[in-house]
Amino acid sequence: MTTDKIDGATVTTQANVYFDGRCVSHGLVLADGSRKSVGVILPSTLTFTTGAPEVMECVAGSCEWRLAGTEAWASSRAGEKFSVPGNARFEIRVAQAYHYICHFG
Amino acid sequence: MTTDKIDGATVTTQANVYFDGRCVSHGLVLADGSRKSVGVILPSTLTFTTGAPEVMECVAGSCEWRLAGTEAWASSRAGEKFSVPGNARFEIRVAQAYHYICHFG
Repeated sequence: MTTDKIDGATVTTQANVYFDGRCVSHGLVLADGSRKSVGVILPSTLTFTTGAPEVMECVAGSCEWRLAGTEAWASSRAGEKFSVPGNARFEIRVAQAYHYICHFG
Repeated sequence: MTTDKIDGATVTTQANVYFDGRCVSHGLVLADGSRKSVGVILPSTLTFTTGAPEVMECVAGSCEWRLAGTEAWASSRAGEKFSVPGNARFEIRVAQAYHYICHFG
């Protein structure tokens, strides 16, 4: 099941623009204090670095991803999640738009 | 004064991607039922068509804009708003990223 809506969010109005706009997100804080972002990655192959651990939840489209140093790509599509440790690097390969919720911490 | 945050929003998690990603936004519904979006336009000159009337509020960066059929460009920067009637066309010209809240209705 995909998470179509997030309720009770405080939205940071200025977007985060990464990689010349291949990735755009908006930050959210929920009533319980948890931090998330909603974003989209457009067709590209990008390398991200985490601070806190992240759970990436796909809400539309799909991607392939792998941790730095890993050979095999795993796929993730709408309704699926994958976890990335803190202070790590991972690659995302997107053929069509990948829409996601990033859950921090 | 710029609107840095919007509280109590229900966020649609899937982004709206227009013009090959030159414009990306996320839809919001507030507690009072009002509809908005938060988005960013990357460097480009784009023509938009409105359904409902819109108020475009700049939260970071700047743009120039004009209604279809108008000669002169007006500028809008952080903290400033401009209004567009319903069922209208307008052009936006962006040199650096233009971050906005779109207030509908």
